[in-house]
Amino acid sequence: MNKRVYNFSAGPSMLPVAVLERAAAEMTNANGTGQSVMEMSHRSKDFKPIIDHAEAMLRELMEIPGNYKVLFLQGGASLQFPMIPLNLAVREDGKKQKVTYVDTGVWASKAAEEASKYAEVRVAASSKDKAYSYIPEAPAPDTEDVYYHITWNNTIVGTKWNKIPNTGSVPLVADISSCILSEPLDVSKFALLYAGAQKNLGPAGVTVVIIREDLIKKVPDWIPTMLRYEIHAKEGSMYNTPPCYGIYIIGLVLDWMKEQGGLAEIERRNREKATLLYDYLDQSKLFRSPIRKEDRSLMNIPFVIGNADLEAQFVKEAAASGLVNLAGHRLVGGMRASIYNAMPKEGVLALIDFMKQFEAAHRS
Amino acid sequence: MNKRVYNFSAGPSMLPVAVLERAAAEMTNANGTGQSVMEMSHRSKDFKPIIDHAEAMLRELMEIPGNYKVLFLQGGASLQFPMIPLNLAVREDGKKQKVTYVDTGVWASKAAEEASKYAEVRVAASSKDKAYSYIPEAPAPDTEDVYYHITWNNTIVGTKWNKIPNTGSVPLVADISSCILSEPLDVSKFALLYAGAQKNLGPAGVTVVIIREDLIKKVPDWIPTMLRYEIHAKEGSMYNTPPCYGIYIIGLVLDWMKEQGGLAEIERRNREKATLLYDYLDQSKLFRSPIRKEDRSLMNIPFVIGNADLEAQFVKEAAASGLVNLAGHRLVGGMRASIYNAMPKEGVLALIDFMKQFEAAHRS
Repeated sequence: MNKRVYNFSAGPSMLPVAVLERAAAEMTNANGTGQSVMEMSHRSKDFKPIIDHAEAMLRELMEIPGNYKVLFLQGGASLQFPMIPLNLAVREDGKKQKVTYVDTGVWASKAAEEASKYAEVRVAASSKDKAYSYIPEAPAPDTEDVYYHITWNNTIVGTKWNKIPNTGSVPLVADISSCILSEPLDVSKFALLYAGAQKNLGPAGVTVVIIREDLIKKVPDWIPTMLRYEIHAKEGSMYNTPPCYGIYIIGLVLDWMKEQGGLAEIERRNREKATLLYDYLDQSKLFRSPIRKEDRSLMNIPFVIGNADLEAQFVKEAAASGLVNLAGHRLVGGMRASIYNAMPKEGVLALIDFMKQFEAAHRS
Repeated sequence: MNKRVYNFSAGPSMLPVAVLERAAAEMTNANGTGQSVMEMSHRSKDFKPIIDHAEAMLRELMEIPGNYKVLFLQGGASLQFPMIPLNLAVREDGKKQKVTYVDTGVWASKAAEEASKYAEVRVAASSKDKAYSYIPEAPAPDTEDVYYHITWNNTIVGTKWNKIPNTGSVPLVADISSCILSEPLDVSKFALLYAGAQKNLGPAGVTVVIIREDLIKKVPDWIPTMLRYEIHAKEGSMYNTPPCYGIYIIGLVLDWMKEQGGLAEIERRNREKATLLYDYLDQSKLFRSPIRKEDRSLMNIPFVIGNADLEAQFVKEAAASGLVNLAGHRLVGGMRASIYNAMPKEGVLALIDFMKQFEAAHRS
């Protein structure tokens, strides 16, 4: 049996080993119920404390104000792309309303494209001109906008917003899939936040939506029941069977975060890990970061050599050394180290050591 | 620590303990990869064999013909309720097309209601007149029907179809959430079968869709990308991150089924378990089955006393004896024993023993 590897996947990715060990220990009998969490009726007294705990921990760690609902849904961020305009922008009379998107990468662009089916989308700014290697200035919203959408951390290219755009009274919506709980974020500045679980929260198959209550309203009849925030909010994420086991794992991950010292300590570690890697990249004669310094992600760190053969060799040799999933996204190539909350500092140090050896061997 | 209970929940429900033990053993390091399946990138060489295996096992055990696609989706059967009409019945010109539904219970009725947003629904028969306690004769389809929908096993009331309706050239669609792989079913007689995983397949959060390839086609632009069979089929259920861990557990459950002797042996056991319980009910002076004999489910067996206080006492005392989740669905009351594939014969015998004792104590 191999030992555990350092997994730099962009998601699904590493989970804290303490969480996995606890899940394994509780697998056939959780909390003395004589059942696995996978086997529990979602409407039973055994499961209720589990979903309530996950929500309470998320509220505590993110400091979510009381006038926001927390929903545990399915379908990933990709299903939020249509749900957001369907719930926030569609009128009974069918008139398309205005929304603003900022294009900072592939996912931001997909979100805007899906929204254009249901709303009049204005892409107010884009960093596509420089391969999404920076975050553009946020233009003011249109006064008629019903919402304004940004992608806070861009998983593929490794950028993140460092300032919350001031959209005045226009509701600000953000995809925080790849950075949720990586550092503090002022939830009260947003109207809706959403995140697929499979980076910092738990396994794939759960989507967290945090929505200000005044945005939850009845929508036109033609919109599928399962795509309505109103229904899921009213039913406490139990309109139908939720992804129970994933919600349980999220609760364990949030417990682990609190045990580590909470979000302040997690942020300290994330900054330390990212700084180690960026500092190495910035002085390397072989590797470099393609991303503008002030917009660099703490979670996803792409780097390049500029020689596709050598990059392929690097990824292959790193994997053989227990540093896996370092290939860049298939759309951009190069390398990418995703260093989410569960990646220990030792993993980043091992990567840097390996990069130094590789650089020594291949600097011409 | 309590010992394992017999869990009669309608879903999520019992899983084979051998599957849970294997999942626990592999939790921090699956197949020598140094990762949990929860941590694997869905596009990695580590995960590919896992999803391929789950599909291959499903094809083998259900004998799915080669001209059907198998999709692993999210959102439960409830998201299939709109997806089926959106993919099969919506035309570019907006003209509503005809579809037929047979109303055999709450879920059948919800499916029809959701479809009525997108199609001209004819509810051709219903057993609502007798509290859904039987399966009605299946009327012929309308010649203009684009599909014909039935709910093969009705989880809440405990009925099931015993004969596949002859719909001629009209595609037959069936919800088999609560009976998939409980006994052989001729897939070739159906155009589309769908099932939430959380009864006979695995944990909640995965939906299996088995669809004949000729029904997969481009749909109008306004339909959300995530709700299109065309997209999921083309991308091999990887348009976005699938619910990887649930798919892995499904594979383990299907391995277990094969080890037990395959579907023929599973069916034999299911018939034996259900016969034991129905035979007891039919001679009891306290309990009775409200369901017409020829339409009784093998999976969900409701029974009543006809005295709500005594029924509540039964459910409570049974739970104290390690026989849990025997309350009937909140909409119908009484009791219900769901005895899916993973419920051992010993669990049914323990239930019958307990019922006999309760009957002896409470027959006036």
